[in-house]
Amino acid sequence: MPESVIDGHASRLNALREQLKKDGFDGFVIPRTDEHQGEYVPPQAQRLAWLSGFTGSAGLAVTLLDRAAIFVDGRYTIQVRQEVVEDLFAYKHLIDEPAHEWLSENVKAGMRIAYDPWLQSENQINILRKGVEKAGGELVAVESNPADAVWRDQPARPCTKSMPYDLKYAGKSSREKREEIGKLLDASDADCAVLSLPDSVAWLLNVRGEDVDHTPLVLSFAVVHADGSVQWFVDGGKVTSETLSALDNQVEVAEPDALESRLIAFAQKGKSVLVDPATCPERITSLLEKNGAKLVRAMDPVMKPKARKNDTELNGIRAAHIRDGAAMVQFLKWVTENAIERAGTDNPVTEMEAADKLRSFREDVPMFKDLSFDTISGAGPNGAMCHYKVSNESSISLNMNEIFLIDSGGQFLDGTTDITRTIIIGSPTEEMKDRFTRVLMGHISLAMAKFPKGTNGMQLDSLARRPLWDAGLDFDHGTGHGVGCFLGVHEGPQRIAKASSPVALEPGMFLSNEPGYYKAGEYGIRIENLIIVRDAGKMIGLDIPLYDFETVTLCPIDLRLVEPSIMSASEIKWLNDYHAWVREELTPLLDAEHQAWLQAATKSI
Amino acid sequence: MPESVIDGHASRLNALREQLKKDGFDGFVIPRTDEHQGEYVPPQAQRLAWLSGFTGSAGLAVTLLDRAAIFVDGRYTIQVRQEVVEDLFAYKHLIDEPAHEWLSENVKAGMRIAYDPWLQSENQINILRKGVEKAGGELVAVESNPADAVWRDQPARPCTKSMPYDLKYAGKSSREKREEIGKLLDASDADCAVLSLPDSVAWLLNVRGEDVDHTPLVLSFAVVHADGSVQWFVDGGKVTSETLSALDNQVEVAEPDALESRLIAFAQKGKSVLVDPATCPERITSLLEKNGAKLVRAMDPVMKPKARKNDTELNGIRAAHIRDGAAMVQFLKWVTENAIERAGTDNPVTEMEAADKLRSFREDVPMFKDLSFDTISGAGPNGAMCHYKVSNESSISLNMNEIFLIDSGGQFLDGTTDITRTIIIGSPTEEMKDRFTRVLMGHISLAMAKFPKGTNGMQLDSLARRPLWDAGLDFDHGTGHGVGCFLGVHEGPQRIAKASSPVALEPGMFLSNEPGYYKAGEYGIRIENLIIVRDAGKMIGLDIPLYDFETVTLCPIDLRLVEPSIMSASEIKWLNDYHAWVREELTPLLDAEHQAWLQAATKSI
Repeated sequence: MPESVIDGHASRLNALREQLKKDGFDGFVIPRTDEHQGEYVPPQAQRLAWLSGFTGSAGLAVTLLDRAAIFVDGRYTIQVRQEVVEDLFAYKHLIDEPAHEWLSENVKAGMRIAYDPWLQSENQINILRKGVEKAGGELVAVESNPADAVWRDQPARPCTKSMPYDLKYAGKSSREKREEIGKLLDASDADCAVLSLPDSVAWLLNVRGEDVDHTPLVLSFAVVHADGSVQWFVDGGKVTSETLSALDNQVEVAEPDALESRLIAFAQKGKSVLVDPATCPERITSLLEKNGAKLVRAMDPVMKPKARKNDTELNGIRAAHIRDGAAMVQFLKWVTENAIERAGTDNPVTEMEAADKLRSFREDVPMFKDLSFDTISGAGPNGAMCHYKVSNESSISLNMNEIFLIDSGGQFLDGTTDITRTIIIGSPTEEMKDRFTRVLMGHISLAMAKFPKGTNGMQLDSLARRPLWDAGLDFDHGTGHGVGCFLGVHEGPQRIAKASSPVALEPGMFLSNEPGYYKAGEYGIRIENLIIVRDAGKMIGLDIPLYDFETVTLCPIDLRLVEPSIMSASEIKWLNDYHAWVREELTPLLDAEHQAWLQAATKSI
Repeated sequence: MPESVIDGHASRLNALREQLKKDGFDGFVIPRTDEHQGEYVPPQAQRLAWLSGFTGSAGLAVTLLDRAAIFVDGRYTIQVRQEVVEDLFAYKHLIDEPAHEWLSENVKAGMRIAYDPWLQSENQINILRKGVEKAGGELVAVESNPADAVWRDQPARPCTKSMPYDLKYAGKSSREKREEIGKLLDASDADCAVLSLPDSVAWLLNVRGEDVDHTPLVLSFAVVHADGSVQWFVDGGKVTSETLSALDNQVEVAEPDALESRLIAFAQKGKSVLVDPATCPERITSLLEKNGAKLVRAMDPVMKPKARKNDTELNGIRAAHIRDGAAMVQFLKWVTENAIERAGTDNPVTEMEAADKLRSFREDVPMFKDLSFDTISGAGPNGAMCHYKVSNESSISLNMNEIFLIDSGGQFLDGTTDITRTIIIGSPTEEMKDRFTRVLMGHISLAMAKFPKGTNGMQLDSLARRPLWDAGLDFDHGTGHGVGCFLGVHEGPQRIAKASSPVALEPGMFLSNEPGYYKAGEYGIRIENLIIVRDAGKMIGLDIPLYDFETVTLCPIDLRLVEPSIMSASEIKWLNDYHAWVREELTPLLDAEHQAWLQAATKSI
């Protein structure tokens, strides 16, 4: 790390500590999140990166006046060492050595530790508070963020133009959605709910924006009432006349700084307000409570209805995946041919070039708006880092007889895509084939699963892991995450993972199916398609619905890495049927040369 | 139902209501449980059966002065109709129409609803309290149970002789166990823990008794301290000189009526006391809290150490299963031959005769002490009721071409057994074979599973259901429950089920593996073996242990019900290997005639 960078972070930390002293505090908590708890935060809110240098998508720093620590999860244990000066911040594991334990060990009795109540939820703060109080200290909310006070060139908050999301893509009018949520509030004995997640706001109002990278969000808050009316607290500069005219008269637009006074007014009327203690800023929860509101603590009421895509959304998603699949075929043909041809020369294909090339294919696809996340383009050992983000500095070349993993996706107006393919450049070893085939068997097992209503993703997760477990192998990430429709590539509440799932799977829910295997220092394997939960009739002899998954991602799976001898007949049949479908759907979108390539790539085994 | 029975319950309910009025109450909660939350309760504590007539193993009644309801789960919806007068108690579903909702709908503002704080835990009471308070009523603990006041011929509390559980079976001295628990208390910042579960007391003190049916318990309480010392609150009549001399001087024996004053004394000293809010009587929790104790709410600290059987226990369990298996072979030969021979005659084999016959074979087994539960002996449609308990009144005959299911077990000094076998009398239909084979495939899938440390039973449950789910079938009970060692045939905390599991599986944990399928009105299928979690090396490339299961139950699986064409090669291999092992282990214990039968029953397919 250059001296200038080290000095920069040292002087920022120093300035922050001076500010804390001035404000009468002995410490401060700096989370990576902003008010909206999103995965992508705008530059103005990247306080953790500004202070520490850490650019990962999750984490937390805590500083006292004489010491500080940074807490990151297993994905970032290497990255934190590259980005953060250990002399300034001790490295800690977010889960195994959590911040509240560090606080309970390092805080001294009587210390006042500050936090910004806009940046963390009640649940998060309650945990930190216990740690501080165990040590005899006090956790205190600040009125204004001390880091902002000393951040000299802090960027402005984003203020991009919003646009209405047309009914032909959304499938349901905002009024209909608001009535649906209103009924849910009634059933929860709540007069209204505060929405702090911008994808909840986007879905409810059928609006989209460009406030952050890769997710078409309008950063804003909303309050939705049991009668279906909404106050939308949003910077006026974001609200175009087009957006405004698409909203009906039940939606009132107000500036964000009106939010607090309006919440106080609701509270003082004794209203019953639903807040999600896991995602709503603690500032809002405590403000409501202090002013007499009756709090209904429950999951954001928009999350589940948003997760169950309607038929229009599903058709858009299917259409976007066909177009995206054609771009993927163009890319796979290009990368396979070029990587081999140029391997060993002084101009090999690099990870960065591959990612850029794939982006250029996607940019030509109709209705493309953005990538849905930063492409993970991992050759050989880089593929073994599950969340590797390629950069010009890290980019290595694709070598012969090495595995190349590429995880990417697009934001199309009619749907969001997310796909991982793993290919061999040249010839695989027997071990590579065995591992790839086990990952594939897990993927197929989940893709073919049938299950009764009421089943959740924790119950199904083991189906995808079993072929790996059988050989003493596993992978250290979830099997499936929820995906939005022209919204976040990661959304809740459903998931397929070892960790417990807050909800059962329901028809229309849209998820990834992405088992993997990672051999540190050698290669990474992941096969990811997106899947939709659908009705599959009734259980035999019972009045209980049976569900299964529809796979929507269309793209060949590298047959050179498949070892059919360890697969069952039904698994081989699934693969052949899948490839026949991919061929049938994509052929019309391709020229003769790519049709021939696809034909070979999808042959029956 | 005879008039006299109806009148009896009406007059009991009436007497209880008069008592409630006299005591100034408007209602009362009558759970099925006693102070120890066990599955088997002594006659004196069967208040729910006395009042309502309901004899199921779980349930709850609530009476107001003018109305009452009984709450039972899905297992007992038929039985409750046969045993309880609907005019007296409205039938409600324990889960879907829970008591707290009924209370919130039926209680009027100002009503005082009584409960016996010895019979329910803090968690249970908290839920009921919310329901009563929602209606503006008050839930009030009684000092003495009003049902006992009007129960004229209430039996005495059981007082059977206890006996020490020899180290050669227990494998670990009480002192060693108490030191282990003491360390756990230290780590939880608790000075002591109240043990209210009698199997926790039995394990910790290495004592056994006969206070209830089928589980060798001494009903009693204990307080265990961080220094390993124990106060055992037990009726002096139960403590034999043999038991006393096996206890060391760190165990103080006191009468049960000393418990409260001792708890108050601990509390007043400001001691930190661990209580399990899910199982400890609310009386104890509230008494401690009121008197100034610092409560540590956590799982009974004995549960997990008790669940992880030591090597001596595991060897005892294996030995008991070999002997039990020989008894099962004698029974299966007898029932198959006799049922066919006598089918259609005026002296067919009946469910009751089969259960009695199996009991008689088990009684001849060395170290047999008791059945581990009431045998479920279900012919044809009776087998479709998962928890059918055969009686002289219900017993039907075993008919040709019908399925017979028998679920039974023994309490042996060296281990507890629990086994279910399903056989065909005559010839099965294709459907029967398909369903049986899918249940078997699920059983085998779980038996063969390997999984990393940290995996719990909710994650594994779907492996056992998948072959059924694939055909749109399922079963409405858990896949596996914990089993004690010469203790409860059902014990926690581990389980394999759709519902969430409180703990991960660990080596030495002992469970059942019992998927099933039930076709209402026709037949029931269940295949149950007991399994032990064991170490299976390390995950490849990781420092994480890999676990698998050792099957310990030895008994043929009816091959006439197996359809090999839908099984995989590895499933068929498991079945053949299992049968070869059963044959090898049991042959030495059988006479020539039974050896020949076993040989045929375990042939390779």
